[in-house]
Amino acid sequence: MKTLVVYDIPDDRTRNKVFETCKDYGLAHIQYSAFFGELNHNRRQELYQRLKRVLGKNEGKVLICPVCDKDLVLALEIAQPEDEAVSRRGDTGRRGPIVY
Amino acid sequence: MKTLVVYDIPDDRTRNKVFETCKDYGLAHIQYSAFFGELNHNRRQELYQRLKRVLGKNEGKVLICPVCDKDLVLALEIAQPEDEAVSRRGDTGRRGPIVY
Repeated sequence: MKTLVVYDIPDDRTRNKVFETCKDYGLAHIQYSAFFGELNHNRRQELYQRLKRVLGKNEGKVLICPVCDKDLVLALEIAQPEDEAVSRRGDTGRRGPIVY
Repeated sequence: MKTLVVYDIPDDRTRNKVFETCKDYGLAHIQYSAFFGELNHNRRQELYQRLKRVLGKNEGKVLICPVCDKDLVLALEIAQPEDEAVSRRGDTGRRGPIVY
Protein backbone atom coordinates (compact mmCIF):
# COMPACT_ATOMS: atom_id res chain seq x y z
CA MET A 1 0.00 0.00 0.00
CA LYS A 2 1.25 3.48 -0.80
CA THR A 3 2.56 5.18 2.30
CA LEU A 4 3.37 8.77 3.16
CA VAL A 5 6.04 9.43 5.79
CA VAL A 6 6.21 12.95 7.19
CA TYR A 7 8.64 14.00 9.89
CA ASP A 8 9.62 17.02 11.90
CA ILE A 9 12.97 16.51 13.59
CA PRO A 10 15.03 19.50 14.81
CA ASP A 11 18.37 17.68 15.25
CA ASP A 12 20.28 17.49 11.94
CA ARG A 13 21.99 14.17 12.66
CA THR A 14 18.81 12.43 13.74
CA ARG A 15 16.91 13.89 10.78
CA ASN A 16 19.59 12.64 8.40
CA LYS A 17 19.30 9.17 9.89
CA VAL A 18 15.55 9.23 9.40
CA PHE A 19 16.15 10.38 5.81
CA GLU A 20 18.55 7.48 5.16
CA THR A 21 16.21 4.97 6.80
CA CYS A 22 13.31 6.06 4.58
CA LYS A 23 15.59 5.70 1.54
CA ASP A 24 16.59 2.22 2.75
CA TYR A 25 12.93 1.29 2.61
CA GLY A 26 12.74 2.30 -1.04
CA LEU A 27 10.67 5.41 -0.46
CA ALA A 28 10.94 8.46 -2.73
CA HIS A 29 11.95 11.82 -1.25
CA ILE A 30 9.06 14.03 -2.33
CA GLN A 31 9.56 17.01 -0.02
CA TYR A 32 12.18 18.26 2.44
CA SER A 33 10.66 16.19 5.27
CA ALA A 34 8.39 13.79 3.41
CA PHE A 35 8.80 10.45 1.70
CA PHE A 36 6.33 8.44 -0.32
CA GLY A 37 6.26 4.90 -1.67
CA GLU A 38 5.03 1.35 -1.49
CA LEU A 39 5.16 -0.41 1.90
CA ASN A 40 3.14 -3.40 2.97
CA HIS A 41 1.79 -3.73 6.50
CA ASN A 42 4.87 -5.55 7.84
CA ARG A 43 7.32 -3.13 6.26
CA ARG A 44 5.37 -0.20 7.69
CA GLN A 45 5.56 -1.73 11.16
CA GLU A 46 9.26 -2.45 10.68
CA LEU A 47 9.96 1.11 9.53
CA TYR A 48 8.02 2.43 12.52
CA GLN A 49 10.16 0.40 14.93
CA ARG A 50 13.37 1.45 13.19
CA LEU A 51 12.42 5.12 13.22
CA LYS A 52 11.50 4.88 16.91
CA ARG A 53 15.01 3.59 17.58
CA VAL A 54 16.59 6.26 15.36
CA LEU A 55 14.68 8.99 17.16
CA GLY A 56 15.43 7.52 20.59
CA LYS A 57 14.99 10.22 23.18
CA ASN A 58 15.51 13.04 20.69
CA GLU A 59 12.75 15.52 20.08
CA GLY A 60 10.76 14.89 16.96
CA LYS A 61 7.63 13.67 15.27
CA VAL A 62 7.06 11.08 12.58
CA LEU A 63 3.81 10.17 10.90
CA ILE A 64 3.63 7.01 8.78
CA CYS A 65 0.33 7.12 6.94
CA PRO A 66 -0.90 4.57 4.41
CA VAL A 67 -2.88 6.13 1.56
CA CYS A 68 -5.23 3.90 -0.43
CA ASP A 69 -5.66 4.32 -4.18
CA LYS A 70 -9.08 5.93 -3.76
CA ASP A 71 -7.57 8.66 -1.57
CA LEU A 72 -4.59 9.06 -3.88
CA VAL A 73 -6.87 9.77 -6.84
CA LEU A 74 -8.33 12.68 -4.85
CA ALA A 75 -4.96 14.05 -3.76
CA LEU A 76 -3.97 17.49 -5.05
CA GLU A 77 -0.42 18.55 -5.66
CA ILE A 78 1.31 21.83 -6.35
CA ALA A 79 4.91 21.73 -7.53
CA GLN A 80 6.46 25.05 -8.44
CA PRO A 81 8.56 24.96 -10.54
CA GLU A 82 7.38 21.68 -11.99
CA ASP A 83 9.72 18.87 -11.00
CA GLU A 84 9.58 15.90 -13.31
CA ALA A 85 11.54 13.78 -10.85
CA VAL A 86 8.79 14.07 -8.28
CA SER A 87 5.63 13.88 -10.30
CA ARG A 88 5.30 12.83 -13.89
CA ARG A 89 1.90 14.45 -13.86
CA GLY A 90 3.31 17.79 -12.81
CA ASP A 91 1.17 20.65 -11.64
CA THR A 92 -1.52 20.72 -14.28
CA GLY A 93 -4.30 21.54 -11.86
CA ARG A 94 -5.83 18.15 -12.51
CA ARG A 95 -6.58 15.75 -9.73
CA GLY A 96 -4.40 12.68 -9.07
CA PRO A 97 -3.35 9.98 -9.17
CA ILE A 98 0.08 11.07 -8.04
CA VAL A 99 2.62 9.11 -10.01
CA TYR A 100 6.00 8.62 -8.40
CA MET B 1 -12.89 13.64 4.96
CA LYS B 2 -9.72 13.91 6.99
CA THR B 3 -6.98 15.62 5.00
CA LEU B 4 -3.23 15.86 5.40
CA VAL B 5 -1.50 18.94 3.99
CA VAL B 6 2.29 18.76 3.68
CA TYR B 7 4.41 21.53 2.23
CA ASP B 8 7.99 22.37 1.46
CA ILE B 9 8.42 26.08 0.83
CA PRO B 10 11.86 27.72 1.14
CA ASP B 11 10.67 31.35 1.28
CA ASP B 12 9.69 32.35 4.84
CA ARG B 13 6.99 34.83 3.87
CA THR B 14 5.30 32.45 1.44
CA ARG B 15 5.54 29.60 3.94
CA ASN B 16 3.95 31.77 6.63
CA LYS B 17 1.09 32.59 4.27
CA VAL B 18 0.55 28.89 3.58
CA PHE B 19 0.60 28.29 7.34
CA GLU B 20 -2.05 30.98 7.93
CA THR B 21 -4.19 29.71 5.06
CA CYS B 22 -4.19 26.17 6.47
CA LYS B 23 -5.20 27.61 9.86
CA ASP B 24 -8.00 29.57 8.17
CA TYR B 25 -9.35 26.26 6.91
CA GLY B 26 -9.54 24.93 10.46
CA LEU B 27 -6.67 22.50 10.10
CA ALA B 28 -4.46 21.55 13.04
CA HIS B 29 -0.71 22.20 12.87
CA ILE B 30 0.69 18.73 13.55
CA GLN B 31 4.28 19.20 12.36
CA TYR B 32 6.53 22.06 11.24
CA SER B 33 5.28 21.79 7.66
CA ALA B 34 2.17 19.66 8.03
CA PHE B 35 -1.47 20.29 8.86
CA PHE B 36 -4.29 17.82 9.41
CA GLY B 37 -8.04 18.12 9.71
CA GLU B 38 -11.49 17.73 8.23
CA LEU B 39 -12.10 19.10 4.73
CA ASN B 40 -14.83 18.08 2.35
CA HIS B 41 -14.21 17.79 -1.39
CA ASN B 42 -15.15 21.42 -2.12
CA ARG B 43 -13.07 22.83 0.71
CA ARG B 44 -10.09 20.76 -0.47
CA GLN B 45 -10.44 22.18 -3.97
CA GLU B 46 -10.83 25.67 -2.57
CA LEU B 47 -7.73 25.32 -0.38
CA TYR B 48 -5.80 23.99 -3.38
CA GLN B 49 -6.72 27.06 -5.44
CA ARG B 50 -5.87 29.41 -2.58
CA LEU B 51 -2.51 27.77 -1.96
CA LYS B 52 -1.72 27.93 -5.67
CA ARG B 53 -2.33 31.68 -5.53
CA VAL B 54 -0.29 32.04 -2.33
CA LEU B 55 2.62 30.15 -3.86
CA GLY B 56 2.38 32.06 -7.14
CA LYS B 57 5.67 31.79 -8.95
CA ASN B 58 7.63 31.05 -5.77
CA GLU B 59 9.45 27.77 -5.43
CA GLY B 60 7.66 25.19 -3.35
CA LYS B 61 5.62 22.06 -3.09
CA VAL B 62 2.28 21.34 -1.49
CA LEU B 63 0.51 18.03 -1.18
CA ILE B 64 -3.13 17.94 -0.11
CA CYS B 65 -3.99 14.33 0.57
CA PRO B 66 -7.33 13.02 1.85
CA VAL B 67 -6.98 10.10 4.24
CA CYS B 68 -9.97 7.81 4.76
CA ASP B 69 -10.79 6.34 8.18
CA LYS B 70 -9.53 2.90 7.15
CA ASP B 71 -6.10 4.34 6.33
CA LEU B 72 -6.08 6.46 9.45
CA VAL B 73 -6.58 3.41 11.65
CA LEU B 74 -3.42 1.94 10.13
CA ALA B 75 -1.38 5.14 10.53
CA LEU B 76 1.58 5.02 12.92
CA GLU B 77 2.82 8.01 14.84
CA ILE B 78 5.90 8.80 16.87
CA ALA B 79 5.86 11.91 19.03
CA GLN B 80 8.90 12.48 21.19
CA PRO B 81 8.41 13.95 23.72
CA GLU B 82 4.74 13.13 23.79
CA ASP B 83 2.67 16.16 22.88
CA GLU B 84 -0.85 16.01 24.20
CA ALA B 85 -1.87 18.91 21.98
CA VAL B 86 -1.14 16.93 18.85
CA SER B 87 -2.34 13.48 19.70
CA ARG B 88 -4.47 12.48 22.63
CA ARG B 89 -3.30 8.95 22.02
CA GLY B 90 0.36 9.90 22.29
CA ASP B 91 3.13 7.57 21.33
CA THR B 92 2.04 4.36 22.95
CA GLY B 93 3.27 2.18 20.12
CA ARG B 94 -0.29 1.23 19.33
CA ARG B 95 -1.81 1.70 15.93
CA GLY B 96 -4.26 4.55 15.17
CA PRO B 97 -6.70 6.06 14.90
CA ILE B 98 -4.92 9.38 15.22
CA VAL B 99 -7.12 11.65 17.28
CA TYR B 100 -6.69 15.37 16.73
